[in-house]
Amino acid sequence: MPLPSRFKHCPHCGSAVDYRVPADDNRERAICAACDSIHYQNPLNVVGTLPVWEKDGRVLLCRRAIEPRHGLWTLPAGFMELGETTAQGALRETHEEAGADIEMGSLYTLLNVVRVGQIHLFYLARLRSPDFKPGPESLEARLFSESEIPWDEIAFKTTRETLRCFFEDRRAGRGFGLREFDIP
Amino acid sequence: MPLPSRFKHCPHCGSAVDYRVPADDNRERAICAACDSIHYQNPLNVVGTLPVWEKDGRVLLCRRAIEPRHGLWTLPAGFMELGETTAQGALRETHEEAGADIEMGSLYTLLNVVRVGQIHLFYLARLRSPDFKPGPESLEARLFSESEIPWDEIAFKTTRETLRCFFEDRRAGRGFGLREFDIP
Repeated sequence: MPLPSRFKHCPHCGSAVDYRVPADDNRERAICAACDSIHYQNPLNVVGTLPVWEKDGRVLLCRRAIEPRHGLWTLPAGFMELGETTAQGALRETHEEAGADIEMGSLYTLLNVVRVGQIHLFYLARLRSPDFKPGPESLEARLFSESEIPWDEIAFKTTRETLRCFFEDRRAGRGFGLREFDIP
Repeated sequence: MPLPSRFKHCPHCGSAVDYRVPADDNRERAICAACDSIHYQNPLNVVGTLPVWEKDGRVLLCRRAIEPRHGLWTLPAGFMELGETTAQGALRETHEEAGADIEMGSLYTLLNVVRVGQIHLFYLARLRSPDFKPGPESLEARLFSESEIPWDEIAFKTTRETLRCFFEDRRAGRGFGLREFDIP
């Protein structure tokens, strides 16, 4: 997942853009040669959950049916959309990818992935049922105990880090305060 | 600050876009009629700090030299850029707007402003010096005790809510765990 590709044309009028530093700014932006509008490109948020079935402490993972990382396991997550909050986006993605019924908890990890211009935000969540209905983006959705986690088949570093922290905090019995990471 | 304006032309090739739901998606996107590329529009992060001068507990505010809310007071903050982490962006904005020398602390507030498609993230910060050098976006930068805060002249609800929480948590002596809010 590379950085978003640079604008070549103005999304307002379709003319070619130049890259230069606007007045009162300090970095290059795409500026329309015809209509003078300035087009910014900024990092995007990926929002998801770490759903726990509290009866036995197992956590929910989904196996990806799409690229990148087809066939590997991940926490339910996806790009935040306009018109929703971070928590609403995380809940939506959990419904869409796993068909899971959850009660949202607190924000647990914030992971900066500068290389691809993304911020990943994972919320803790409590599963209301152990029954899932994976959506078209998932091959399957199932519960894993800590010893069953397929560490060699985890799709993304942000999922791996969030799971690692969760089991570490749970073993230490110290609660689940926010954890922040920068992913190289 | 309204939502980002909708794309009319493809930023890759300049042709007109149609709005329709792509295959394997569930909401309308801007799709290029000529090159078939899909253009997503997503919420943006605004990152900033709440800088504290620990010798007397005063906090730093900047008076805006730009629209919107010219002349009103705000915590230093601005749009996160590609190539930086949330914390690096918050530090950069504090340098740019206040010329303040700070040591970054933990993430303190996450505020969803769905109406404008923004997420505001404020970090606690410790001022290393009470001397400031406001940048071109600020008319002045100065320290305020709790009783001096110009509550009727605060530029944004996200600044107001972050300040309100900070003084509440400090008076209660309970530490500064993450606070989450949805701003109507």
